[in-house]
Amino acid sequence: MDKDSKVSITVIRRLPKYYRYLGDLLKKGINRISSQELSKMTGFTASQIRQDLNNFGGFGQQGYGYNVEELHNQLGRILGLDTVYNAVIAGAGNLGQAVANYKGFEDAGFKVLCLFDKNPKLIGLKIREIEIRDVDSLEEFIKENNVEIGIITTPKENAQDIADTYIKSGIKGIWNFAPADLKVPEDIIVENVHLNESLFTLSYFLKNRSDYTT
Amino acid sequence: MDKDSKVSITVIRRLPKYYRYLGDLLKKGINRISSQELSKMTGFTASQIRQDLNNFGGFGQQGYGYNVEELHNQLGRILGLDTVYNAVIAGAGNLGQAVANYKGFEDAGFKVLCLFDKNPKLIGLKIREIEIRDVDSLEEFIKENNVEIGIITTPKENAQDIADTYIKSGIKGIWNFAPADLKVPEDIIVENVHLNESLFTLSYFLKNRSDYTT
Repeated sequence: MDKDSKVSITVIRRLPKYYRYLGDLLKKGINRISSQELSKMTGFTASQIRQDLNNFGGFGQQGYGYNVEELHNQLGRILGLDTVYNAVIAGAGNLGQAVANYKGFEDAGFKVLCLFDKNPKLIGLKIREIEIRDVDSLEEFIKENNVEIGIITTPKENAQDIADTYIKSGIKGIWNFAPADLKVPEDIIVENVHLNESLFTLSYFLKNRSDYTT
Repeated sequence: MDKDSKVSITVIRRLPKYYRYLGDLLKKGINRISSQELSKMTGFTASQIRQDLNNFGGFGQQGYGYNVEELHNQLGRILGLDTVYNAVIAGAGNLGQAVANYKGFEDAGFKVLCLFDKNPKLIGLKIREIEIRDVDSLEEFIKENNVEIGIITTPKENAQDIADTYIKSGIKGIWNFAPADLKVPEDIIVENVHLNESLFTLSYFLKNRSDYTT
């Protein structure tokens, strides 16, 4: 991968989809695929796919297509899935517990070390062997355990405070489920999952069927 | 709203954000805002904001800006938040329970009537007064209770089956949390929350810091 080139965020957001489809193909024992076939699976055009993948070096061979396993492995490396990151979750309510239980974590190389909450009823409980601790010990824990990812599943009102604690403690990336736009320094990576925006979009389309273009 | 015009999906996806910010302003007792001030809050340019909102009729007045309450109400109507939809959830594991507990539902006018699962240990339990029933009764329940929204929080392997049952039973919109691209007829609205793609994107940015443009 050419470290000098800048890849657009829309291309990057398509990579996990390619990765997922290639994983499905691998499981089915399919070893070779053309960009045309990938196009049928993903809904992106074949030329879009070739262009996307060319950003990271020429994986395909003309007349042969792509080697599924090789491309899957390469995309995994590009997506950083071969690197293990330590993570913590702030907010051990239903959503925090669902995230702690989320199987996709391990596939992505994320290891949830601990959950944190301020509710005394939750502190001390375990989710899948992962302990829930008092949020007051969050900063200390992060510093002592080389935690790089902070997940936020608190109510909106607490999200910025948690983000500030994360940043102060040396966290590099935040996965934010709270419906708030966090203010963070430029070198901190924030990935938002805004459930209410997704829900409102669904509501819009239900109310205004056929009233949009894609 | 002009029912004949087609609004682009990228504009629509920004509306929930405007709606959220306007709600925050209302709570603070702020009654009037300019597109410049909205720009500072949202990160979109003032001209982008004016253009977006013009799609739905001219809300702002030159030299005055926007009336916060009026715009908030109008966007709520456009987003269909004044309409109540009945919903069910298939998959009553952690994620399904988190979704059932999700406060944002009521604000969006969604009413979760029932959860469904095939695990006998879950059937009969209640989440916030909402019963978990056997997935075998899903089709009947939807038909008898005028359910319009189906939520999928099952494993990937079961997602298409559930979607097929939803469609057969007359559901109009699907909120899909399973990491699968559902095959549905054109008139069915699908809104995906692909957690693993979000996580992989975070992983990518952590591995390739500064190696992208926005």
